[in-house]
Amino acid sequence: MSVWPMLEDDEMPEASRAVADDIRQTRKTDFLNNFWRVLANDPALMKRTWESLKEIMSPGELDPLAKEMIYLAVSISNSCDYCISSHTAAARAKGMSEAQLGELLSVVGMASETNRLASALQVPVDEAFRRPPKASNSPKGE
Amino acid sequence: MSVWPMLEDDEMPEASRAVADDIRQTRKTDFLNNFWRVLANDPALMKRTWESLKEIMSPGELDPLAKEMIYLAVSISNSCDYCISSHTAAARAKGMSEAQLGELLSVVGMASETNRLASALQVPVDEAFRRPPKASNSPKGE
Amino acid sequence: MSVWPMLEDDEMPEASRAVADDIRQTRKTDFLNNFWRVLANDPALMKRTWESLKEIMSPGELDPLAKEMIYLAVSISNSCDYCISSHTAAARAKGMSEAQLGELLSVVGMASETNRLASALQVPVDEAFRRPPKASNSPKGE
Amino acid sequence: MSVWPMLEDDEMPEASRAVADDIRQTRKTDFLNNFWRVLANDPALMKRTWESLKEIMSPGELDPLAKEMIYLAVSISNSCDYCISSHTAAARAKGMSEAQLGELLSVVGMASETNRLASALQVPVDEAFRRPPKASNSPKGE
Amino acid sequence: MSVWPMLEDDEMPEASRAVADDIRQTRKTDFLNNFWRVLANDPALMKRTWESLKEIMSPGELDPLAKEMIYLAVSISNSCDYCISSHTAAARAKGMSEAQLGELLSVVGMASETNRLASALQVPVDEAFRRPPKASNSPKGE
Amino acid sequence: MSVWPMLEDDEMPEASRAVADDIRQTRKTDFLNNFWRVLANDPALMKRTWESLKEIMSPGELDPLAKEMIYLAVSISNSCDYCISSHTAAARAKGMSEAQLGELLSVVGMASETNRLASALQVPVDEAFRRPPKASNSPKGE
Repeated sequence: MSVWPMLEDDEMPEASRAVADDIRQTRKTDFLNNFWRVLANDPALMKRTWESLKEIMSPGELDPLAKEMIYLAVSISNSCDYCISSHTAAARAKGMSEAQLGELLSVVGMASETNRLASALQVPVDEAFRRPPKASNSPKGE
Repeated sequence: MSVWPMLEDDEMPEASRAVADDIRQTRKTDFLNNFWRVLANDPALMKRTWESLKEIMSPGELDPLAKEMIYLAVSISNSCDYCISSHTAAARAKGMSEAQLGELLSVVGMASETNRLASALQVPVDEAFRRPPKASNSPKGE
Repeated sequence: MSVWPMLEDDEMPEASRAVADDIRQTRKTDFLNNFWRVLANDPALMKRTWESLKEIMSPGELDPLAKEMIYLAVSISNSCDYCISSHTAAARAKGMSEAQLGELLSVVGMASETNRLASALQVPVDEAFRRPPKASNSPKGE
Repeated sequence: MSVWPMLEDDEMPEASRAVADDIRQTRKTDFLNNFWRVLANDPALMKRTWESLKEIMSPGELDPLAKEMIYLAVSISNSCDYCISSHTAAARAKGMSEAQLGELLSVVGMASETNRLASALQVPVDEAFRRPPKASNSPKGE
Repeated sequence: MSVWPMLEDDEMPEASRAVADDIRQTRKTDFLNNFWRVLANDPALMKRTWESLKEIMSPGELDPLAKEMIYLAVSISNSCDYCISSHTAAARAKGMSEAQLGELLSVVGMASETNRLASALQVPVDEAFRRPPKASNSPKGE
Repeated sequence: MSVWPMLEDDEMPEASRAVADDIRQTRKTDFLNNFWRVLANDPALMKRTWESLKEIMSPGELDPLAKEMIYLAVSISNSCDYCISSHTAAARAKGMSEAQLGELLSVVGMASETNRLASALQVPVDEAFRRPPKASNSPKGE
């Protein structure tokens, strides 16, 4: 059972209801998943979370599927069961094949392994991995 | 200082030296980073790690840059400083722009935030996120 | 199902029963939660855990609700479902309002996000954050 | 060395410079810490992060010191060295005594211990920890 | 419900079926646990994972029970419920007594506590903990 | 620089000095590592931590080296640099060979990998892994 109740639309505070409407409109679906129905108990938290998420997941330099797969990889690393379920579904909806999921899992597993080896052995960072000089390095640099 | 010494090529056990050669050949570079120079102290561990990594990072369903970015996202989630440095460098070498890195960081940060919210509120998984029926779901299904 | 059985009072080893009695007396309640009923299978582990907890949660420099909220924040960060449930309940029992819980979640989520950004970007610590000179810094300083 | 350069004010993109000004004004100090100087390389990320942080850390139901201590507890749990330094400093600036820090550390340590015990033993959640009925539970309920 | 279906033997791709046979033969049992039945959906991932695991868990410098207990300790630290169940069972099958499990839990809990204290207090590494000179330090050193 | 100063013996509060003496006597060495010199700033925290540690690491059902290796495995999983250094040193002092360290690392790495796979795929726990009936299961069962 969730810590806060899952609210039906007509149980939501007005401010949360407005956020719910924007989620549906942005995602072009009537479906509103449980995460938002629980967050709706705290309108300020729901609004801030959605607005950040909306901005981050909107079209940019990375394609939408790549973003979903990164989101899923982090959710696995954080052992968040709900998030693994929701972002596996979202990635599939954005076109992730099961073979791609298999590769994602392979990379996540391998990274988890080598992360621990590098930490355990306290490997010093190679000089060659230091960032290039400023000019070419800035995200907005020309 | 690393837990095991960083070995120069002529200090490596023969079996490790062979792995080092394969790493260089596969990556088409003479450069061998510190992670491998430390792992070289244990030839079996070095060989197994490299062979898994080589298989996972070889061409497949995901493009090489996507794999590197997933690798980096996991390394950030695991707070592995060495791995963050090496995989940021690797992703840049494979074409990651600084604007793409900015988006990756945005997704990793947002996922870390919503992962904690979903866990804290113990949100139950939506029925709609359950996997589709077997036939269409299998990685190798037709 | 728990790894060790949940023991009723009359199933506990005598040493565990004595700890259970002290828990009830300290907390001024007859209720003994499952965590202790499972730990009761190992009297030494139960006793040591309780005695540390009792000392830490007793009145001190921080008020009891602040301590419970810190306990909850750590439990969320560690993805411990049982602990999230028990410490959310404990914090509510000590007076945490739902609006306060909402703020706690906001802080935990935000910290999780900026923690990852700071690690990913390998931001060097500011000189200004170094601790002040010894005299004024000691916990027991005069 | 940070992944992105630490920008002086006159090196920042205009949009980042505006955020920097707001940080200084809000905090009533000229000092701008390295975290923001690095984030300034990506104005959108810097702006979104600051606006969320500003909203979350503004006066609310929890007192500012309690929020800082929760922030610090999460940073410790995530092994973020930079964040531990900056939020220890921030909590001290908001009045945290060294004795209070000692208690915070005691709670964080104890929670980390019992979190692992509860997970390892797979203790089922007590019925008594389930949330109370809806009416009294809503964050905005009266 | 698992993300991929749990495959019966006759549903597995041929390559996965061969791995399943090797698992049974190596472990001298007909029982194949769910982890492998799910991984069987991706033959390459299943094969690589099993071959690494088989090599690592085969007789070596550490006795099999010690390896299982280390595996369990990591699974607890990563909050992996499935892995906690499977490796608690495996350790018991290899002779772990309940009293030994109690000590393992005590060590895991204590380490989790002191890990956080050391990170929080940013304790510098003692010179005495640096590794001894190369000759005597190499895993294969004579 | 540590958050609290590293205290020389004559700078320690009397209660901390007594703990330091007990550490030296128990470990039969004059050497006191930095972890304790920093904790010494808070006598209650130092005393409670040491007394728990002393009890846990004293002779029991597991041999001292096995305990140290479990301690090290958890420290690696928690990315605690200080703890990795100190417990690698402690395990070596108790007889861990470099080949044994290599196997420990192999197990930690492999567990980290399969933990993530099992969580990502949401594998349900096998019925066969449920604990045996009560009588034979109790740590103190006859």
